[in-house]
Amino acid sequence: MDGSGPSSGSARSLFGWLVGGSQLVGLASVVLTGVWMGRYRGGFAWDGSAREFNLHPLCMVLGLVFLYGDAILVYRVFRNEAKRNVKLLHAVIHLLALIISIIGIVAVFDFHRAAKIPDMYSLHSWCGMTTFVFFCLQWVMGLLFFLFPGASSWLRAWYLPLHVFCGLVLLVLAVGTSLLGITEKLLFSIELTYSQFVPEGVLANILGVLLVCFGVLVGYIVTREEYRRPPNPEEESLSVHFKTLTEGGSPTTP
Amino acid sequence: MDGSGPSSGSARSLFGWLVGGSQLVGLASVVLTGVWMGRYRGGFAWDGSAREFNLHPLCMVLGLVFLYGDAILVYRVFRNEAKRNVKLLHAVIHLLALIISIIGIVAVFDFHRAAKIPDMYSLHSWCGMTTFVFFCLQWVMGLLFFLFPGASSWLRAWYLPLHVFCGLVLLVLAVGTSLLGITEKLLFSIELTYSQFVPEGVLANILGVLLVCFGVLVGYIVTREEYRRPPNPEEESLSVHFKTLTEGGSPTTP
Repeated sequence: MDGSGPSSGSARSLFGWLVGGSQLVGLASVVLTGVWMGRYRGGFAWDGSAREFNLHPLCMVLGLVFLYGDAILVYRVFRNEAKRNVKLLHAVIHLLALIISIIGIVAVFDFHRAAKIPDMYSLHSWCGMTTFVFFCLQWVMGLLFFLFPGASSWLRAWYLPLHVFCGLVLLVLAVGTSLLGITEKLLFSIELTYSQFVPEGVLANILGVLLVCFGVLVGYIVTREEYRRPPNPEEESLSVHFKTLTEGGSPTTP
Repeated sequence: MDGSGPSSGSARSLFGWLVGGSQLVGLASVVLTGVWMGRYRGGFAWDGSAREFNLHPLCMVLGLVFLYGDAILVYRVFRNEAKRNVKLLHAVIHLLALIISIIGIVAVFDFHRAAKIPDMYSLHSWCGMTTFVFFCLQWVMGLLFFLFPGASSWLRAWYLPLHVFCGLVLLVLAVGTSLLGITEKLLFSIELTYSQFVPEGVLANILGVLLVCFGVLVGYIVTREEYRRPPNPEEESLSVHFKTLTEGGSPTTP
C-alpha cells in the first residue's frame, strides 16, 4: 500500500476496507465457533469425549478457513515486498493451517473411536477429507515448484495458474464443508428446537453466513486485476514464458 | 471451436473434454436427484405432501445449478458467435433457470405450510434465499446494463467484472446450498441408518460430489484465459474504456 499498487486513492482505500473487512469477518468466525462450542456445547478437552469433538470445528475454522484465506491474501497485502519473502510467508501460514487442521481431524476421529461412531459416512466427511488431502498435495506441489530451485521457469509458469485456481477451489470447499458441519452439528444436537429459532441455532447460522462472507471477500480481493502484484523481472519472465506457451508468440512479445 | 479460440489443437481438445465432462456431470446430478426423490422418497406430486417437497431438490438442481451453470458456459462454448446472440441465449437460459427455481421454492413453502413446519430457520434456507434474491437482482441488472441500450459503455465496462464475479459466487452458493439441502434431507430421513452406508445415503453423497465437480468444471472453463472470447470491436471498446477507468491510461492505449 505504498502507492505502486492500485492506481487511484479510492481503489487503495477500497482495498484497505476489503482486507480489513475480511479480517474482521474471519476473526469473528473463529470467535463465534469458540463461543458456540464453549458456551453451548460444554467447552474443550482432549479426553475422547464430546468436548474433544468441540476442538474439531474450532481447529478447522481457524486452520482451513481463516489462516488458509490469509495465506492467500499475503500476495495482495504484501504485493510490494520481495516475492521470495512473500512466498515464504505464504508457505509458513499454510503450514500452520495444515498443523492446526491435523489436530482438528485427529480430534474428530478420536471422538468417533471413543463413542463408537463410524467414520467417513457423511457428505461433510467426504468433502472435508477431499479438501484436506488436496490441501496437503497443493502444499507439497507449491513447495516443489515455487520454493525449491529445481523447477524450470517453464514448469513454474505452467503450474502457477493451476495452483492459484486449485487454491481458491480449496478455500471454497473448506467454507462449504464448514457449513455442512454446522448443519450436521445442529441437527444432531438441537434438531427439535432448531426450527424455533433458538439462540444456538441462530448463532450457528450467523457463523455460516460469516464464513461465506469471508470466502467471498478473499475471492474478490484475489481475483481483482488491480490488486495484483505490480510486475517485476521475475514475474515478467514467467509471464513471457507463459504467453509463449499458451499463445504461441515469440518470447520477446510483451 | 472453429479455430479462432484456443491457440492449439490440444487446448481445443481439452476444452471439448471439459465442456463435455461438465454436461455429463451436470446431467448426472439432475438424474440422480430425480432417482433419489423418485425411488427412495416416494416420487412427485403437487398436493402439499412430502411428494410436493420432492420437487424442490429436483427444480433447484436443474434450475439453479445445471441451467445456471450452462447459462454461464455459453460465453465460452459460443465464443465465436455474434455477441448479441450469445447475450440473448445467456439471458434466456437464466430466465428458464429462474422460472424453474421459483417452482422449486414454491414447492417447499407449500409443503411447509401443509405440514406446519416453520420457514427460513435453517442455514440451508438462509443461504438458498440469499442466492435466489441475488440471482433475481443479478438477472435484472444484467438485463438493464447489457441488453437494454440505455447504459453507457463506461457503465457497462465498470459493471462487467462485478457481474462475472457475482455470477460465479452465486453458482458456488447454489452448489453449496444444494449440499446443505442434501445433508438436511438425509438427517431428517435416514439419520439412524446414514452411518451404516445405506444405498440412499451413498447415492446422495455421490450427488453432492457430482455437484461440486460441476461447479469446479464450470469455474475452471470460465476463468481460463485461453477459453475467453477472441477480441472484437465491441469488446475492444469496452476494454479500452475499462483500462482508462482503472489504470488512468489514455483511451487510445491498447
